[in-house]
Amino acid sequence: MAPLITLLTDFGYQDGYVGVMKGVILSICSDVRLVDLSHAIPSQHIAAARFTLLNAYAYFPKETIHVVVVDPGVGTARRAIALQTPYGYLIGPDNGVLSGVTDQVGILKAVSLTQSAYWRVPEPSRTFHGRDIFAPVAAHLAMGVSLSDLGEAIDPISVTRIDVPQPRKTENAIVGHVQHIDGFGNLITTIPERMAQHQHGGSRVMVGAVDMPFGLTYGDVEIGHAIALIGSHGWVEIAVNGSSAQARLRLAIGDEIQLCLSP
Amino acid sequence: MAPLITLLTDFGYQDGYVGVMKGVILSICSDVRLVDLSHAIPSQHIAAARFTLLNAYAYFPKETIHVVVVDPGVGTARRAIALQTPYGYLIGPDNGVLSGVTDQVGILKAVSLTQSAYWRVPEPSRTFHGRDIFAPVAAHLAMGVSLSDLGEAIDPISVTRIDVPQPRKTENAIVGHVQHIDGFGNLITTIPERMAQHQHGGSRVMVGAVDMPFGLTYGDVEIGHAIALIGSHGWVEIAVNGSSAQARLRLAIGDEIQLCLSP
Amino acid sequence: MAPLITLLTDFGYQDGYVGVMKGVILSICSDVRLVDLSHAIPSQHIAAARFTLLNAYAYFPKETIHVVVVDPGVGTARRAIALQTPYGYLIGPDNGVLSGVTDQVGILKAVSLTQSAYWRVPEPSRTFHGRDIFAPVAAHLAMGVSLSDLGEAIDPISVTRIDVPQPRKTENAIVGHVQHIDGFGNLITTIPERMAQHQHGGSRVMVGAVDMPFGLTYGDVEIGHAIALIGSHGWVEIAVNGSSAQARLRLAIGDEIQLCLSP
Repeated sequence: MAPLITLLTDFGYQDGYVGVMKGVILSICSDVRLVDLSHAIPSQHIAAARFTLLNAYAYFPKETIHVVVVDPGVGTARRAIALQTPYGYLIGPDNGVLSGVTDQVGILKAVSLTQSAYWRVPEPSRTFHGRDIFAPVAAHLAMGVSLSDLGEAIDPISVTRIDVPQPRKTENAIVGHVQHIDGFGNLITTIPERMAQHQHGGSRVMVGAVDMPFGLTYGDVEIGHAIALIGSHGWVEIAVNGSSAQARLRLAIGDEIQLCLSP
Repeated sequence: MAPLITLLTDFGYQDGYVGVMKGVILSICSDVRLVDLSHAIPSQHIAAARFTLLNAYAYFPKETIHVVVVDPGVGTARRAIALQTPYGYLIGPDNGVLSGVTDQVGILKAVSLTQSAYWRVPEPSRTFHGRDIFAPVAAHLAMGVSLSDLGEAIDPISVTRIDVPQPRKTENAIVGHVQHIDGFGNLITTIPERMAQHQHGGSRVMVGAVDMPFGLTYGDVEIGHAIALIGSHGWVEIAVNGSSAQARLRLAIGDEIQLCLSP
Repeated sequence: MAPLITLLTDFGYQDGYVGVMKGVILSICSDVRLVDLSHAIPSQHIAAARFTLLNAYAYFPKETIHVVVVDPGVGTARRAIALQTPYGYLIGPDNGVLSGVTDQVGILKAVSLTQSAYWRVPEPSRTFHGRDIFAPVAAHLAMGVSLSDLGEAIDPISVTRIDVPQPRKTENAIVGHVQHIDGFGNLITTIPERMAQHQHGGSRVMVGAVDMPFGLTYGDVEIGHAIALIGSHGWVEIAVNGSSAQARLRLAIGDEIQLCLSP
C-alpha cells in the first residue's frame, strides 16, 4: 500500500508554497498519496492548527504521516520534531501544534530532526523549514527510514504542550469555554460529548445573556435561531441554523458558556 | 485502473472537514484517486452545487463516483441517496443537488442509503453525514460493493429535482434568465448553445437597459465592455472583458435577459 | 513511475473549472499524479503566475509537466505552446507566463499546439483552452506522445518574455524593486541572494523613508517590526514579524528598495 502523508499549514492558497512541499516530497517518494488537511489555518495560529489536527487524525489509516507547518518561530531555536504515536507519525515544529493529538494518544517515541542528511539541503532556508526540513523528512519516513535515524531521541515529556482550560461541573451546570470557531461560524466548546450526553431534553445552554435549547441537529430550531448540540467533532457546539453563530452571537475564543443541567 | 471519486461540498478550505472525508475514504479504499470539484460552494447553496456538478460530470471517466455534500437538511428526515447513471454514480442528500445531471442523462438505478453496515459507524453524527455516510458509502462502492447492497431501492421518479425556468422564443428574441454567476463574475444564462448558435453576426443581447454584442470571445470587445457569448459551459454567458460582469451590471440570479434575433 | 502534472491557474476555488481539467486529464491518462501549484493567482495576472512557476519548478522531478492557464488572451490570436526544458515540460499560452523558468534554464524545443488530434475536441471553446487544449495536450504528453507531434516547431527566440527590471549596484547600495507580494504580505524584491549574501551584519535596507535591519529570520526583530532578509525564494525579501509588510509599509509591485552596503 502506498504511504500516506497529510499536510496542514497556514500557507494559504495564493502562493506556490504548498505545491513546492509536494514537489519535494514526490522527488523523494514518488508513489506517496498526499492529502491536504487545510492550508487556510489563520496565519501563525498554533491553537487552530492543533485543533484541526486533533479532529482529523483518528479518521486516517494508522500508518499515516501528518505534517504540520504552522511555525511562527521558524529559523529560531525552537526544535523541529517527529513523533511516533499509536495512530501514526506527527512531524512539525515543537510549538504545541502536535500536542492535541499526543494529549489524547500519547507518544511512543520522539526525535529532534537534527540529522541533516534527511533534509533537502544541509543549509536550510531560515524561513521555510516546510520545504527544507519537514517535507523531505516526511518523505524519507514514508520511504522506510526509521524514526531514530532522523535525529536525536528526545524525552516525550519535553515536547511542548498547549494547555486548554478543562470544563468543570458546578451544582447546576457544566461550565466550559469556546475553544475553536470553524469556517461556518460554529463555536466549538471545550465540553466533551461524554460530559453532556445525558443532558438532552429540557437542558438549556447559556452564553452571556443568551440562552438556547440543547438539541440534536441544526434543523431543531428555526432558521436564524441559536442551538447547542453535540457537534461532529465530539464537543458541545453552538450554531445558528442557516447562519454564523460567531457573527450573530459575537463570541470569541475563550468566552465562557454554561450548559445548565436538567432538573 | 484505480477507481475515481470526486468531492463537491460547501465546507470551505479553512477547516479539516474535507481532509477528514478523504481519510475515511482512504481507510476503506487505499488506492482510490480523489479529485476536488470545489469546496467553496456558497454555504448551503443547493442550486450552485447542482450547477457545478452538471457542468463537470461529462468530463470524467464514466465509472467515476461523484459525491456531493451540500446538505442544509443534514440530520433531518431528508434521504441520503446513491444513483447510477450512464455517466457513473452520484452520491449525496436527496435535496436536488444531483438533479442537474439526472435531468440530462437519466437514472438507471436509485437507492436510499439505509444499510448502516456501509456507514462509518452505526450511529452517525447528526451534523456530518459527509464523514459518516457519504464518504464511506462512496469508498465501498469504489471497492466493488453493488449499489443495491447500499440500501433500499427507491423509485427514480421520487428523487428530488430542482426546476430551472426554461428559456422561451418570442417573435424577435430568445428570453432566458441568469442561472449562475461564476467566480470571475461571469453571468451564465439558461439559454443553451443550440438555441443561440445561429445568431452570431449582428445579434444583440439586452439586459434591462444595457445592450451588448453577441460575440465569440472576451477579446471581441474592448477592456471594460460587456459582451455576450457562448460560454465554455455551453450556455449564453454575459461577461465584461477584463472585469466582473456581476459587479459592472449589477445582475443577480433569476434576472431576465433577451437575445434579440438578427433580422 | 507515474507521470506528474502540475496545474497553475487563476480559476479560483469556487467553480469547477480546475476539477474539469483534472477530469479531462484523468480520462486520457488514468495513472497520472496531479499537483496544484495554485489556483488563486490574481485574475489574469501573468506576472504573478510567472513568478509562482519560477519559484516552484526546481523542486519537482525533472520529467514533470507544468501546465499554466492564466490566459487573458484566450480565444484570440495568441499561440498555445509547449516547451521542453532541462527541467521538464511547460505548457500554456504564449504570453510570458512560462518565461520566468525559461530565462533561467533555457528552451530545448518549442512547439505551437496546432495539432488538433491531441485537443479534447477539434473545435475548442473560445474561452476555456485549459479544458480543451492545455489539459488534454498535457495528458497526451504524459502518455508518451512526443513534443514534436503536438504541433509545429517554433523558434525558441519567438516565445514571449516578460522583462523584469534588473537590480543595479551604486557606490553605496544595491537598488532593486518589489517584484511580488505573497499571501503573507511579504514583499519579494528583484535583488538575488548572490548579490546580497555578504551584506549581513550592520547593513540596512531602505524603502522610502523607512529603514530596517538586514537580518536572517523574522524573529530577529520584535513583533510588529520590519526586517529585510534572504527569503525562501532566494531573493531579498521585506517582512514584518507577525504581520503583513504590504499592509504596514504600503508598498506596491514596482516600488524601489535600497540595500545600503556596510561601510
